[in-house]
Amino acid sequence: MTDRVENILRDYFTENAFKPGDQLPNEFEMAQKLNVSRNVVREALSRLRMLGMVESRPRRGMVMAQPDLLAGLEKVLNPLLLSQDDLKDVFELRLVLELGVSEILFARKTPEDMAELEEIAERQKGLAVLTKEDEIEFHGKLYDMTGNETLHRFQSMLAPVFDHVFAAYYNKTSKSSKLEQVTHYDLFKVLKEGTAAQFRTAMYNHLAVYIDSASSR
Amino acid sequence: MTDRVENILRDYFTENAFKPGDQLPNEFEMAQKLNVSRNVVREALSRLRMLGMVESRPRRGMVMAQPDLLAGLEKVLNPLLLSQDDLKDVFELRLVLELGVSEILFARKTPEDMAELEEIAERQKGLAVLTKEDEIEFHGKLYDMTGNETLHRFQSMLAPVFDHVFAAYYNKTSKSSKLEQVTHYDLFKVLKEGTAAQFRTAMYNHLAVYIDSASSR
Repeated sequence: MTDRVENILRDYFTENAFKPGDQLPNEFEMAQKLNVSRNVVREALSRLRMLGMVESRPRRGMVMAQPDLLAGLEKVLNPLLLSQDDLKDVFELRLVLELGVSEILFARKTPEDMAELEEIAERQKGLAVLTKEDEIEFHGKLYDMTGNETLHRFQSMLAPVFDHVFAAYYNKTSKSSKLEQVTHYDLFKVLKEGTAAQFRTAMYNHLAVYIDSASSR
Repeated sequence: MTDRVENILRDYFTENAFKPGDQLPNEFEMAQKLNVSRNVVREALSRLRMLGMVESRPRRGMVMAQPDLLAGLEKVLNPLLLSQDDLKDVFELRLVLELGVSEILFARKTPEDMAELEEIAERQKGLAVLTKEDEIEFHGKLYDMTGNETLHRFQSMLAPVFDHVFAAYYNKTSKSSKLEQVTHYDLFKVLKEGTAAQFRTAMYNHLAVYIDSASSR
């Protein structure tokens, strides 16, 4: 029942072209119009509030709001709950993003960003083993450089699932030397002096051990 | 208050390593344990039910479930509600996916899939103008070929926002001849006879008009 009312409400908002900030009818009016109980309306609105689609304003009641694109996804990216297929899909999704982001990086990189990336890559050159935090620092900086907030947040949400899948299924295969052939520092150099196409190739080689795992599933 | 209880419940499930199928305490027990009203618990559970994290089973009450990864995102991908920044982020996200998917396509393509793709590309060669449906048919088949259900559904969810952004902001610039240089049929040929790297380049040229728009924002 709540599912139905939630769908009806979303359709109603779309059909009436409600925009963020627009005043919504109150719970009582909605319940009457839809001929359902106020409890059901309250539950459906609570769901929409979770997604950021509606919010309560003091003395104005409920208004339409700008939803949080990734709020729903963020809540379910729990390795313990997802199916094996979903976990592998998410694993691949991160690889696809890393490989696809090259053009935007080349279009947007600034000297300031490159200086910061160099500092990270330079520092990591001295480390025998890179931790998860090191990986996140370098790759996170790349996403930061895209200027695409959604992409940045999306990939950082995928990271724990990615690590979980890699640890669970693929870690038995020796982390081949392929992975070491292209380092973070190498990636930095290509981003600085190469082309978008060269960077895509370098990123492919950097991620080769993961891509091989994914392709052979 | 419901936000807080929703978070507490999710943390509680994680800390106790609840897996899909596991029986959950009933509303009454949860309300007592958290010292909140049953209405608040019911609202929080309704949110989790929307995400597919919990479900009601006849005679068993509430059990843990396998969440629907993209359910939350799907509900908010409404061009009328998203901010301009979010819209542009989603526009780019689709481009990133199209460019990044090459390796997986080459690893997974089958003769049957290629025959189907050829049939589509061959038929579209005869058309003067490609409609949205034609675009979806060709690019959707590519995602279908990845065998990654999440990626496939994700990109088809992004399509309406992508079209909205392109129509609203970029259609004034003449659809340059670049777009025509690499056709769906050309993409098919490269996928059949070329390499993953060549396909990435061909896809880049196919999407050049969009990528130019995105880069210059």
